[in-house]
Amino acid sequence: MNFPSKLVENAVNQLSRLPGIGKRSALRLVLHMLKQEKNSVEQFGNSFIQLINRINYCSICYTVSDSEVCEVCASEKRNKSIICVVEDIRVMMAIENTMQFKGVYHVLGGLISPMDGIGPNDLRIEELIEKIENNTVKEVIFALSTTMEGDTTNYYLFRRLKDSGVKISSIARGISIGDELEYTDELTLSTAIASRMPYENSLAK
Amino acid sequence: MNFPSKLVENAVNQLSRLPGIGKRSALRLVLHMLKQEKNSVEQFGNSFIQLINRINYCSICYTVSDSEVCEVCASEKRNKSIICVVEDIRVMMAIENTMQFKGVYHVLGGLISPMDGIGPNDLRIEELIEKIENNTVKEVIFALSTTMEGDTTNYYLFRRLKDSGVKISSIARGISIGDELEYTDELTLSTAIASRMPYENSLAK
Repeated sequence: MNFPSKLVENAVNQLSRLPGIGKRSALRLVLHMLKQEKNSVEQFGNSFIQLINRINYCSICYTVSDSEVCEVCASEKRNKSIICVVEDIRVMMAIENTMQFKGVYHVLGGLISPMDGIGPNDLRIEELIEKIENNTVKEVIFALSTTMEGDTTNYYLFRRLKDSGVKISSIARGISIGDELEYTDELTLSTAIASRMPYENSLAK
Repeated sequence: MNFPSKLVENAVNQLSRLPGIGKRSALRLVLHMLKQEKNSVEQFGNSFIQLINRINYCSICYTVSDSEVCEVCASEKRNKSIICVVEDIRVMMAIENTMQFKGVYHVLGGLISPMDGIGPNDLRIEELIEKIENNTVKEVIFALSTTMEGDTTNYYLFRRLKDSGVKISSIARGISIGDELEYTDELTLSTAIASRMPYENSLAK
């Protein structure tokens, strides 16, 4: 693309470096911005500069936080002896939205993915193990995606923790609530049959 | 969504104000940024602040430009007596990429769209008419989208310009090069038959 302005070209290049945004979409977004008020575009740009300069991670669970310790870890109402291990803050936010989990979290910062060059040392796994060894943790719940990377990470964590004495569980895998069985894929269906549970436990609460 | 950090929330809100980006995609993009180097995120933010503060519009054709007059309008090789009227710089860039058009442009800055509250006075139409009245313009080409808004703008411009003495044309509407007729929609096909052209003119050049 030949741009009539270097400023536009630069903004388009910056936007199209984000995953899932191509040059054409980026140009459309930049032209949209040019129609906005100067003040609001400045706020847009500044929000990212502030983000990267001021962002803080909770010193206990490693989620993003505006203070030294996040709201969940600081709350007296949360049960510190149950740790839910998640990939990133999106999963943590999703679980928080259910308002069902009363324990605390540990944010790994990713999943083990040899294809992307991400090994156990790139994640906050040692910090998790240290936390369990030094602490009064009773149960660790793995809440990781049911993908190859999620399963690899699950298995790695299980091997590292199995002799630690804590109870280890993984969130249930089965049929989503509301799903029709005839449209469920074979792998999910066979996993759900193999992992069948006592009838009383299977009711949605 | 309940965010664990106001900084993240602010960045997500800013991104999701852009057309086509929802809160979930915005959060994914913000988490991607948090994994980037501080320097590169600062560049990202600054590119928009510079864009909105330093952007300039060509004083002749109203395209975005880094100088008072854009490269096309400043070029001695371009035929100033033929003006191609376009909606925005994306169309101008697309026509420039064909390297077939040797005239100059006039960027309207949008199309007449009563549904969106955009009337003739919101576009650079008076500037076009003034240019034609004061100038040595011989031909005006409408290169507007074949949508309802494009057609409305075409018709409005035609009515305003038809007594000015300049030659008025619109880019050809018909079958796209490479299209198979059996898959062409009825409206395009009937327009193409009604606008049939002498065989010699119809060959792709």
